[in-house]
Amino acid sequence: MGRVWTGHHRRQAVVRMDEARRNRQWRLARRPDGAFSPDVVELTEEAVPTPADGEALVAVTHLSMDPTIRGWMEHDTYLPKIPEGGVVRSLGVGTVVASRSDRYTEGDMVSGMTGWQEWMLADDGSHSMQVLPAGTDPLDAVGLFGPTGLAAYFGLLEVGRPVAGETVLVSGAAGATGSVAGQIAKHRGCRVIGTAGSDEKCRTVVDEYRFDGCINYRTERIGGRLRELCPDGVDVFFDNVGGDVLEAALGNLAMRARIVICGAISQYDGAPPRGPRNYTQLIMRRARMEGFLVFDHADRYPEAVADLARWAREGVIVHDVDVVDGFDNVPTAFARLFSGNKRGKNAVRLP
Amino acid sequence: MGRVWTGHHRRQAVVRMDEARRNRQWRLARRPDGAFSPDVVELTEEAVPTPADGEALVAVTHLSMDPTIRGWMEHDTYLPKIPEGGVVRSLGVGTVVASRSDRYTEGDMVSGMTGWQEWMLADDGSHSMQVLPAGTDPLDAVGLFGPTGLAAYFGLLEVGRPVAGETVLVSGAAGATGSVAGQIAKHRGCRVIGTAGSDEKCRTVVDEYRFDGCINYRTERIGGRLRELCPDGVDVFFDNVGGDVLEAALGNLAMRARIVICGAISQYDGAPPRGPRNYTQLIMRRARMEGFLVFDHADRYPEAVADLARWAREGVIVHDVDVVDGFDNVPTAFARLFSGNKRGKNAVRLP
Repeated sequence: MGRVWTGHHRRQAVVRMDEARRNRQWRLARRPDGAFSPDVVELTEEAVPTPADGEALVAVTHLSMDPTIRGWMEHDTYLPKIPEGGVVRSLGVGTVVASRSDRYTEGDMVSGMTGWQEWMLADDGSHSMQVLPAGTDPLDAVGLFGPTGLAAYFGLLEVGRPVAGETVLVSGAAGATGSVAGQIAKHRGCRVIGTAGSDEKCRTVVDEYRFDGCINYRTERIGGRLRELCPDGVDVFFDNVGGDVLEAALGNLAMRARIVICGAISQYDGAPPRGPRNYTQLIMRRARMEGFLVFDHADRYPEAVADLARWAREGVIVHDVDVVDGFDNVPTAFARLFSGNKRGKNAVRLP
Repeated sequence: MGRVWTGHHRRQAVVRMDEARRNRQWRLARRPDGAFSPDVVELTEEAVPTPADGEALVAVTHLSMDPTIRGWMEHDTYLPKIPEGGVVRSLGVGTVVASRSDRYTEGDMVSGMTGWQEWMLADDGSHSMQVLPAGTDPLDAVGLFGPTGLAAYFGLLEVGRPVAGETVLVSGAAGATGSVAGQIAKHRGCRVIGTAGSDEKCRTVVDEYRFDGCINYRTERIGGRLRELCPDGVDVFFDNVGGDVLEAALGNLAMRARIVICGAISQYDGAPPRGPRNYTQLIMRRARMEGFLVFDHADRYPEAVADLARWAREGVIVHDVDVVDGFDNVPTAFARLFSGNKRGKNAVRLP
């Protein structure tokens, strides 16, 4: 994409062209059971839709790969599960190519629930999209200013509430949310330790994201290393992972610690879910464990995006997007989220 | 006991008499492994101690049976573990029978860490005791105004923070803490549901403590019953139990619910500890789970005791103490805490 239609007079031409084209879609063929496997989705196609009054046609340019989609595929969560046979729900970015809505102008870059498809209709209601400021990098729109970056912002600052001098632990520290959360905590004057699944990622976390340390949870004894790196205990744990890392953090909390439950990627896939066996450490440490969803903070997105954009400009935050090209590659790019073989935000760019 | 020495001139006589008497003590013979069994403690005796300058001799009259002691026996918690061979640490109430301290006057009723023994020395430092107002019922001092009642007060009001109209779930609802927590929540205008381990206890919870409902977790499907009794979800869960009950509550939370982790009696004994497998419901419900210790609120005890005493006087709170007589019976009375075969506060009265 990247092409921008600006004039109303071109709308008919566009729509005619679109009718000739096909809209390819990844639909949920069956519910995943255990690890996500690309064969739970199937590629279908239908005619590119024609916008009715109040609607706009959006050419999808980028899809955001988010672990939470795995949950949407299986069961009701904070959103109803994706219906079997339905297009996979997903955040994405696109360009308005034809509009019969006052809300959208041809050429607008928009973000929202595009789904895993090449074209979609935006409207003012349940399919409403956010119009992005001109000049936004679409990779920032899916990553830093998308739900992963916003989750880091609100989860850390509103739920974790670290203060300067405190020790912050971040799991999934090389990931889209963890890397941003840790850098915000550093900017707030905290000592920040990460966990990640390879030595290479740990190097990135320390060298690029400038954490004070990083534990490879696959090869190091995490409990012992945590005590070494956080001798006064963990004041804020921003958890994307669950499992062993959560138990290790519970075992090394500072008094009145805050555990921010952002995600639990170790629990989304495969083995039966496991709860933190030592959760009564919450009593010993007078600590709390709290979940949140970024969508609840939607009224403050503009403020968050302004802060994140400024920090990125000033070099306070480094943000990586790991881009895979091609709509065909969506299921394999999504599966890679769960293999631990990733860094920063994962996104698919459509040609 | 019950005798009160008031005059300084009698001190020598008392001390002489005490030297002739023996101080019986239950000491930790070995650390418990699994369920508490009375054979981990042994009965020893030594001379009744003589108060030095700044000390007072206390005749112990009541011992508070608290599940947390099981933890103190095994490992470091919020307090260091009880040393092997040491007198078992315990809260109790006693009477000052001789004082060489400005803090205590002969005849004072005092409460604090007496330990499982018949006599102890109170001082101004690590063995300091609280002098109770004249006229206090010693059974109230170990129960309603003791750590179990105070835990109900601070845990519910400061951590759970229920507001009128909300639904409050209390596990261990027939117990010393649960029964008080639920009654305070009722007084605050909440709908209150309990869980307990027998139909008889459930009847007490509803008929005597005036909860709106009670689930027998041993015989009823707790998840299904919880959905029936709390159709809008649980706003505040005051948990003394852990295990299945905690998972059922997590599965039926209202938005922005607060789970107060007061205890986890199902986890203190026997089987390997188990974490709540569905803790990520905290994300779905934007909920928090928070631990606390009553001792952190010591500066507000007078306010709490005044409220609890007024509520008891006004009949807002009914408080039961299940009294066992005789120092010999301490270990079996303590074991009974974990069998589920109890109601209200358990205490041992010394002859």
